[in-house]
Amino acid sequence: MVESCLALLNSRGVTFEDLVECVVFLQKPYFKELDMEEVKRCVQSVLEKREVQHALLTGITIDMKAEENDFGNPELVEIIQRDYGLYGIDEVLAYGICNLYGSIALTNYGYIDKVKPGIIGKLNDHNGVQCNTFLDDIVGAIAAAAASKLAHSQEETING
Amino acid sequence: MVESCLALLNSRGVTFEDLVECVVFLQKPYFKELDMEEVKRCVQSVLEKREVQHALLTGITIDMKAEENDFGNPELVEIIQRDYGLYGIDEVLAYGICNLYGSIALTNYGYIDKVKPGIIGKLNDHNGVQCNTFLDDIVGAIAAAAASKLAHSQEETING
Amino acid sequence: MVESCLALLNSRGVTFEDLVECVVFLQKPYFKELDMEEVKRCVQSVLEKREVQHALLTGITIDMKAEENDFGNPELVEIIQRDYGLYGIDEVLAYGICNLYGSIALTNYGYIDKVKPGIIGKLNDHNGVQCNTFLDDIVGAIAAAAASKLAHSQEETING
Amino acid sequence: MVESCLALLNSRGVTFEDLVECVVFLQKPYFKELDMEEVKRCVQSVLEKREVQHALLTGITIDMKAEENDFGNPELVEIIQRDYGLYGIDEVLAYGICNLYGSIALTNYGYIDKVKPGIIGKLNDHNGVQCNTFLDDIVGAIAAAAASKLAHSQEETING
Repeated sequence: MVESCLALLNSRGVTFEDLVECVVFLQKPYFKELDMEEVKRCVQSVLEKREVQHALLTGITIDMKAEENDFGNPELVEIIQRDYGLYGIDEVLAYGICNLYGSIALTNYGYIDKVKPGIIGKLNDHNGVQCNTFLDDIVGAIAAAAASKLAHSQEETING
Repeated sequence: MVESCLALLNSRGVTFEDLVECVVFLQKPYFKELDMEEVKRCVQSVLEKREVQHALLTGITIDMKAEENDFGNPELVEIIQRDYGLYGIDEVLAYGICNLYGSIALTNYGYIDKVKPGIIGKLNDHNGVQCNTFLDDIVGAIAAAAASKLAHSQEETING
Repeated sequence: MVESCLALLNSRGVTFEDLVECVVFLQKPYFKELDMEEVKRCVQSVLEKREVQHALLTGITIDMKAEENDFGNPELVEIIQRDYGLYGIDEVLAYGICNLYGSIALTNYGYIDKVKPGIIGKLNDHNGVQCNTFLDDIVGAIAAAAASKLAHSQEETING
Repeated sequence: MVESCLALLNSRGVTFEDLVECVVFLQKPYFKELDMEEVKRCVQSVLEKREVQHALLTGITIDMKAEENDFGNPELVEIIQRDYGLYGIDEVLAYGICNLYGSIALTNYGYIDKVKPGIIGKLNDHNGVQCNTFLDDIVGAIAAAAASKLAHSQEETING
């Protein structure tokens, strides 16, 4: 299922490399030198988790249905299309991902969601054709989760 | 928006009274006599919360689109239609509701989701025509939230 | 650190076997035959997780300090000693464990916390000498997490 | 109980005004002019919530016991004194507060926890005499919760 998740991400304009860049943004301040192979392994491992795949597929599908004006009542469609600030279901799905990786992942997510580096900023400034309401939060959550995994794994290398 | 939420619940077979019954199921063991007006006020108050409304509208809309075989890739549609045990996004949305009402709400939800009293059992034993994958969890979460609100408000009456 | 966690559990009256029994209670309905070696591996794996160890050590230490009337202001000590129903920090710590194992773990925890099988019931009916306010929730959370891990791992065996 | 919470905060170097400043930091970008009376009402309202009070009292008491080398095994005391990066129980308590205020509160918390404005930075750079491991996260969580409440209440003023 990891292939269909990556294919869906690509079709919405997000590459594996974009995810890696977000992890680097989050973890660079804490490491003299980042092991890029380890960063990639962490991203891959997050994408292989069943719950992450389910959140990703469900969230992006909501974006796509909202974009087609085909997701229930018109008020809900408009809320999602406009990425209305007090609609928090996209964040709820993102927390469903982050929670699996502990408290560092949640803090990372809150930070990246405000600062919007790289692809997350691009998704957020979208031209209005593509709806990215869930997508930007899912990308942020996957990056935050991978960054947390990296922090824990490096620690084990140092102390283990 | 509370009216459109109740209308949507009704159209899927859930009444306000069903929600009240679930709260009674949860809180009866802790009270000699339940104040039914207070129970209703708690249910109403939960339904008036914006985040609850968003979760309810989003979750039930996913059910309806899955039922129409119109929610993204066929594998995801099948997972939702079958209410596959390891698909947890319905629970993630339910926790988004419960979290707003504190730890008692979460415990209540876990319990009601296993025991499946009243309408929750009926929704779960559906005939296969209507997809209730998100609906039963949302009903459980609203009841659990209202029961937690009741527990806190009664305590204030006693101690306040 | 897993040894000091197990030693602390033992000193408070909880054995590894007690944890295994709680997992069996939770998962028996879903399996014709439970692989007891796999159940034990799941419990062990949960206990080896750093965040779980931190929650366990912190929670049980609070119990012990409250028991000694040596945990801050007397009102707080009394709340913890009496396991006051609206004090939810013990559950908050438990959710910190369960969240790492996904939504099945949270539902399992809510259920086991209400039904109180085996050791959890014993801890809850304590004689008043030992304070188990955090301990019973931590035991429930570890069992719920291990049961969730078991559910996911068995699924992989069947489908993989 | 709100008075004893504020007294405890004061005794650890945090004033009501410090909390207000953190909320202003979080919400300024979203408002032309902030209603300072409304900001104060939001902070006060968060402090009056029972679960918030319990988290605050419990967390600060752990800080104080760790500071006195009197919180269980020496390894745990050292972890808390050093505010070890992979000890996440302080964040778990903070999330217990934020969850009550919805997804905006969680995002705000993640952001403020990284940027450390005002009092949070001061607490974090403490001189090593006072242990602020839980305190800085609790302050951040209260501010994040109040900011979320403010965002929701202003919206109601505009749309209501």
